[in-house]
Amino acid sequence: MNKTAIIIDTDPGQDDAVAILTALGSSRLEVVGISVVAGNVPLELTAKNVRIICEWAGRPEVPVHAGCERPLLRPLVTAEHVHGKTGLDGVPLHEPAMPLQQEHAVDFIIRTLRERERGTVTLCMLGPLTNLAMAIVRAPDIVGRIREIVLMGGAYFEGGNITPSAEFNIYVDPHAAATVLACGAAAITMLPLDVTHKATASLARIGLLRALPNRAGNLAADIMTTLERFDVQRYGADGAPLHDPTVIAYVLQPELFSGRKVYVAVEQNSELTLGATPVDWWGITGKPANVNYLTTVDSDGFFRLLADNLSTLP
Amino acid sequence: MNKTAIIIDTDPGQDDAVAILTALGSSRLEVVGISVVAGNVPLELTAKNVRIICEWAGRPEVPVHAGCERPLLRPLVTAEHVHGKTGLDGVPLHEPAMPLQQEHAVDFIIRTLRERERGTVTLCMLGPLTNLAMAIVRAPDIVGRIREIVLMGGAYFEGGNITPSAEFNIYVDPHAAATVLACGAAAITMLPLDVTHKATASLARIGLLRALPNRAGNLAADIMTTLERFDVQRYGADGAPLHDPTVIAYVLQPELFSGRKVYVAVEQNSELTLGATPVDWWGITGKPANVNYLTTVDSDGFFRLLADNLSTLP
Amino acid sequence: MNKTAIIIDTDPGQDDAVAILTALGSSRLEVVGISVVAGNVPLELTAKNVRIICEWAGRPEVPVHAGCERPLLRPLVTAEHVHGKTGLDGVPLHEPAMPLQQEHAVDFIIRTLRERERGTVTLCMLGPLTNLAMAIVRAPDIVGRIREIVLMGGAYFEGGNITPSAEFNIYVDPHAAATVLACGAAAITMLPLDVTHKATASLARIGLLRALPNRAGNLAADIMTTLERFDVQRYGADGAPLHDPTVIAYVLQPELFSGRKVYVAVEQNSELTLGATPVDWWGITGKPANVNYLTTVDSDGFFRLLADNLSTLP
Amino acid sequence: MNKTAIIIDTDPGQDDAVAILTALGSSRLEVVGISVVAGNVPLELTAKNVRIICEWAGRPEVPVHAGCERPLLRPLVTAEHVHGKTGLDGVPLHEPAMPLQQEHAVDFIIRTLRERERGTVTLCMLGPLTNLAMAIVRAPDIVGRIREIVLMGGAYFEGGNITPSAEFNIYVDPHAAATVLACGAAAITMLPLDVTHKATASLARIGLLRALPNRAGNLAADIMTTLERFDVQRYGADGAPLHDPTVIAYVLQPELFSGRKVYVAVEQNSELTLGATPVDWWGITGKPANVNYLTTVDSDGFFRLLADNLSTLP
Repeated sequence: MNKTAIIIDTDPGQDDAVAILTALGSSRLEVVGISVVAGNVPLELTAKNVRIICEWAGRPEVPVHAGCERPLLRPLVTAEHVHGKTGLDGVPLHEPAMPLQQEHAVDFIIRTLRERERGTVTLCMLGPLTNLAMAIVRAPDIVGRIREIVLMGGAYFEGGNITPSAEFNIYVDPHAAATVLACGAAAITMLPLDVTHKATASLARIGLLRALPNRAGNLAADIMTTLERFDVQRYGADGAPLHDPTVIAYVLQPELFSGRKVYVAVEQNSELTLGATPVDWWGITGKPANVNYLTTVDSDGFFRLLADNLSTLP
Repeated sequence: MNKTAIIIDTDPGQDDAVAILTALGSSRLEVVGISVVAGNVPLELTAKNVRIICEWAGRPEVPVHAGCERPLLRPLVTAEHVHGKTGLDGVPLHEPAMPLQQEHAVDFIIRTLRERERGTVTLCMLGPLTNLAMAIVRAPDIVGRIREIVLMGGAYFEGGNITPSAEFNIYVDPHAAATVLACGAAAITMLPLDVTHKATASLARIGLLRALPNRAGNLAADIMTTLERFDVQRYGADGAPLHDPTVIAYVLQPELFSGRKVYVAVEQNSELTLGATPVDWWGITGKPANVNYLTTVDSDGFFRLLADNLSTLP
Repeated sequence: MNKTAIIIDTDPGQDDAVAILTALGSSRLEVVGISVVAGNVPLELTAKNVRIICEWAGRPEVPVHAGCERPLLRPLVTAEHVHGKTGLDGVPLHEPAMPLQQEHAVDFIIRTLRERERGTVTLCMLGPLTNLAMAIVRAPDIVGRIREIVLMGGAYFEGGNITPSAEFNIYVDPHAAATVLACGAAAITMLPLDVTHKATASLARIGLLRALPNRAGNLAADIMTTLERFDVQRYGADGAPLHDPTVIAYVLQPELFSGRKVYVAVEQNSELTLGATPVDWWGITGKPANVNYLTTVDSDGFFRLLADNLSTLP
Repeated sequence: MNKTAIIIDTDPGQDDAVAILTALGSSRLEVVGISVVAGNVPLELTAKNVRIICEWAGRPEVPVHAGCERPLLRPLVTAEHVHGKTGLDGVPLHEPAMPLQQEHAVDFIIRTLRERERGTVTLCMLGPLTNLAMAIVRAPDIVGRIREIVLMGGAYFEGGNITPSAEFNIYVDPHAAATVLACGAAAITMLPLDVTHKATASLARIGLLRALPNRAGNLAADIMTTLERFDVQRYGADGAPLHDPTVIAYVLQPELFSGRKVYVAVEQNSELTLGATPVDWWGITGKPANVNYLTTVDSDGFFRLLADNLSTLP
């Protein structure tokens, strides 16, 4: 079976870690490289965390490329209140031995899309969309070469999580998000809070991972436990939403999800609603659909998929 | 038992008609007067429709005051695609015999609030908030004299119905809405799409009204049947949401509803999200609550309440 | 000779005082009444100051109508740093004996325009445009009855005086200004900073007024001296611009001024440039002209006109 | 004498051509390379035009780097109505023989600033600021290494030239302009329309260049003659403003210019005033100065400087 070639663009972040481990554990994905961006914590930390995660997975050969340390226009907003000071609170961290690549993440994205056969590389976007937007502005020719952009971000039926209007990844760089959603790529799939809030890491589901015999399962369980505490305290919810791993799950098993092809825009001009992603769910605007906007997930299937893939790791 | 004094501000509008009939049918409400605004259809028609409705209810003595024919700043947007050319499609309309009052609606609101005992008059706002905003700008002293502002408008967990971001009443005059929400009144209750979409006029519930022995029940049933066809066609829904009557129901029986005291703002500055009403449901912003934002309704109880009150009319 | 009927809408304010005195001193103007608005200082003070000024002019019979105490949408911004705490710093103030009218300024404007022959009443707007905008929203029929709206406000070739982008009168109520400029009146003339900054009260010109044998001349001279000190200190200028009296001068002697019929809009949506009045001086936008935008004044002729009219007062 | 190292970032553009020729003609400037951007005409043409200009100057060895073909966020707006379809209307164009460099302009800017001694490289920005903004977002460390950013763009006392509010270079990429003005570089000098409209190519001044014995002088004269026709027709002016060459003139002879250190921002959020550059000329905002904003030029000295430098070319 052919593997699907993916680039993971990420800002770990606790749920990013689970997503990266899941991808590295899958026999059906070729992780061409990982591009890193500032987001949940500053770039210095996210670039370190990615390498820690690759080493956890026993994959020090994966090329890791540092990218943009700030959004296109706005000052960086981070989320230490969720992910802790390191970005990976809740698990012990080591000093990674594997190096960062010399090549900048934006160049890596552009080069990979130009070198690989057209329509074969899927971009798995787990953080603010700065790197991809920078690549698109710099090299618009790459847009037609992308197989699919699958991104965690946005909110419509659910309210935002960083402001009443906006989800964190979009809010941090709304201008990058607008650039990506308007780029004209043939396939863009969004996994917004509307779906990730249904992928909750309940204690039972965390138990499924904790029961795995390997370290990766335990790390994922530890991370989810930390997340779960935050969300139960804040929202009184039954477990924390597991945002970023839905991107990898969608690439592996899209039938776990459902949604609608719709027009989605990004609010860039108003402080009040900055980063909002109004979805034309009912076709009111007459604008052509630019996004496959997912709203449901088979949560149990999703967690089984995570467990299956994590189980192959050390 | 003391009656609750209310002013109804309205732009009928099919669901406005059911709301007004319900209020006029209630023995527990004193309808001090009705102020009319442009909205669903232009002012000339809404001012006529209100009088038709009062005559249906056998209440030609109710003072009806025409108000603003245009929003504060924007050109008027109407909704004939929902309510038909007359604003009351689906029922036969007669030429009303009762007169409009000479006094402008804005003056009527100001005078009533100043004449009546402080804290005794509830404002039932069924349309764009132009008249009330004009009254507040002109006579800020009235704010402290209002018992409660109960308004149908806004959307948060549900998307908008006129744009992906905005509900119709707020969208038509977002500046008026912002003025009202920020006016500092002690009690403002919002009935947004989040609650009205749960108050659906299913065929069974329409049947309840049709079974009433009087004309008012049949009129309400006819109106809802027309609305139901529009919504079933557009949304594939199980009956049309009955927006405006929830305002009257809340005044009569608040325990049918639940919600949360929260901070709500109105987007005024961006074309994309104009009229959005982001709700700080989780207390992210730290701003003090200004609104009692309702999100659930006991729909069966709500329709029983409508039927009970409509049954007293001719 | 027929007198020109004018309504003065004003927020005195030192230069407002000179403008009102000039109008009351003219044998060619019929001051139908004065409507008062909040602006340079709060309404309580502006309403008092207008009556003081009328009494200075020996005209206690002029109807003075208090209007809006706050802008349409924004909180009131005042300019005590220019006009002093009373709004009329630099001259001794007495307690006025003449009364305020019962009728609200907005009603006064509407009633006057409806009662007088169409096209005979000129509106002389010396402050924020709240009252007129309120009248237009409430009674759009008055627009076609106005002879001319002559307003002091705006800036284009000159920078702003309250922010780098905005002139004070427009900034205080940009939404009212936008409503007025877009109202469709047949004649709207703007006297922006571009012209008022050329109408400077140099010491020589102030001397012209001080030499008048009556009290009004001395009051005007005292006021200008106070203004002159502020501007010389701030701008190192050769005398203070005399803003509001240009409105009266234009009504009396339009040939003192020149400008161009152009399209002017008002920035309402951006905090940075709020209240800016971009002028399509070169016809770039293709939009039809809505304003006679004045940019030059014969300053010496202007001061002679002031002196001539002030000389007739006590 | 040490030469000043400059990078020219440009979108020729007729006046860009005169600026580049002037720089290449100067014995006091080291043109490290030229980075090209889309602006007056699309990138394909600007990248070709720069090489034509270098060959005119007999300098085919100058490294020319193509940069961004689109602004950060907005669709590209061009100015063929001024510069003609080729961008260099009015002079015969040949097919350039010299190559474009492989390296992208953004990388060239970053690499040069990192390789050269800190504080030795001046950036001469003649077009939209996309390339520099992209470099700053990608490599914020370069900001502290820049000697000075000298840019043609903006308007304050003069109105805009592409909209009533905005100058062309800023309007095409207001987000890039905002990024550059806020980047924190130690020295940013703006040459806005306020100064370039005083550097008019009158017939007499064009004659000065036409009298030069070499081809460069004649080319510059031909270009200015074409520009002059456009402006005389549009504005009835006494010659066309010569925008971009002021940047090179300022680097060579700053004493020809005067201005003020002020705070300048860029409007990004309102369609009406997009790209406006409000200048805090009077220190109203209290914000620290970020720009040396030039408003006067010794025009005759400026044209003499152009003639002197152009005279050294073939």
